[in-house]
Amino acid sequence: MDESLHERIAADIRRRVLSGELRVGAAVPSESQLCAQWDASRGPVRQALGTLRAEGVIGGGRGKPPVVLRQSMSQPFATFMSFSRWVNGLGRTPGQRTLEIARRPSTPDIAAALHLTEGTPVVQLLRLRLIDDQPTMIERTTFVEPVGRLLFDFDCDSGSIYAHLESQGVDTTHGSHVIDAVAADQKDHELLDVPTGSPLLRERRTATSVTGEPFEYSDDRYRPDIVSFSIENSQRAHPALSRIAERAS
Amino acid sequence: MDESLHERIAADIRRRVLSGELRVGAAVPSESQLCAQWDASRGPVRQALGTLRAEGVIGGGRGKPPVVLRQSMSQPFATFMSFSRWVNGLGRTPGQRTLEIARRPSTPDIAAALHLTEGTPVVQLLRLRLIDDQPTMIERTTFVEPVGRLLFDFDCDSGSIYAHLESQGVDTTHGSHVIDAVAADQKDHELLDVPTGSPLLRERRTATSVTGEPFEYSDDRYRPDIVSFSIENSQRAHPALSRIAERAS
Repeated sequence: MDESLHERIAADIRRRVLSGELRVGAAVPSESQLCAQWDASRGPVRQALGTLRAEGVIGGGRGKPPVVLRQSMSQPFATFMSFSRWVNGLGRTPGQRTLEIARRPSTPDIAAALHLTEGTPVVQLLRLRLIDDQPTMIERTTFVEPVGRLLFDFDCDSGSIYAHLESQGVDTTHGSHVIDAVAADQKDHELLDVPTGSPLLRERRTATSVTGEPFEYSDDRYRPDIVSFSIENSQRAHPALSRIAERAS
Repeated sequence: MDESLHERIAADIRRRVLSGELRVGAAVPSESQLCAQWDASRGPVRQALGTLRAEGVIGGGRGKPPVVLRQSMSQPFATFMSFSRWVNGLGRTPGQRTLEIARRPSTPDIAAALHLTEGTPVVQLLRLRLIDDQPTMIERTTFVEPVGRLLFDFDCDSGSIYAHLESQGVDTTHGSHVIDAVAADQKDHELLDVPTGSPLLRERRTATSVTGEPFEYSDDRYRPDIVSFSIENSQRAHPALSRIAERAS
């Protein structure tokens, strides 16, 4: 049995659910349709559907036609942490425009978030993030200096900072996210093309490396008409998290 | 060994972490301090600390003094679903003021969320929720009629609707939550004492009963200076969810 084929079939259905093309309650394409679409035998198609059933994405089976159970599924850790990976996973194009990268002393807030003494130098980055060229989010990110210095040799407009840091040996093991709402300030207004004072969805994230120390603190502000966060929780299963992107209308 | 004592000690520390009294990085009271505070022997104190360590709430042990690792831990399913239970768990006082309960035909949006035919009668509730008498959240909740009718015999100002519905045999097994930000409208302004247009944290929740059918859809709008959502995720552990309440300043 072709292992990569069943994985590709499952990934494609996952993507269609995440993107909203297949909504909760919608019928998943039948085995015959999937066999025809992928020029595949029943084996890999059944294996793909079995995987999605085990993940709780689809129901049915045992004679019942499969339907979508959850609009969202838990995104893998790396996908939930990285904007680039998330957008790539949607089959869309992530973009970024770096507006500033600076080394400066940490303010009291930042020092507290990163467990530093106030005034310890940190590296700060201001980036606009885009989905298919649509301004979607502003990142105000602070890295501890030993990590941030790795970015001075990196073109932050070229793609995922997480992927770059990982290639340099920085591995993220834990993310702590506080989600609330804030009014757009002047900078948000200019970059996200929303009125000053309009509501933005904010995620404040602290990332911890394998050594157990926080290395990144970020204040990310999303246009709420484009991005929301989804949580699925159950009596009997672990919670599932994801970001959801609306297709621009 | 007194089973309820170690549970009470663990619950008290959990509450102090959740309420923000003990912050991330703060030292947890020592074994001797806890023994004195609870008039307890070492056994239950060690068992309580062991439980919190297993939950990832505190670190340390093996000679290192325990410190708080996570501001938030995953709230039990029932606590995450119910405002009253959550606020009670913080050791604070939940309140509610029911502004309207009405039976009316479902609009297209509501019908889609609850898998009903448009126009099917539903029961809608508008409630202001309070923490220690502070207006905190507005619920715009719709129940399918067979569930909503149970509320006409219930004083919605007396406490938890979930607790009442459970006593009537409605059991919640799954919650689907979409979190974004919206601008306060006229009603939000009047009830939450925030300017019209100011950002609110919104949770749209669909609750599913044991029979597998959605029975509740709610649009809950929180004052973001009082409530935020917390997500902890890791490479190696399941995600943990909680609501966080700031102490009013």
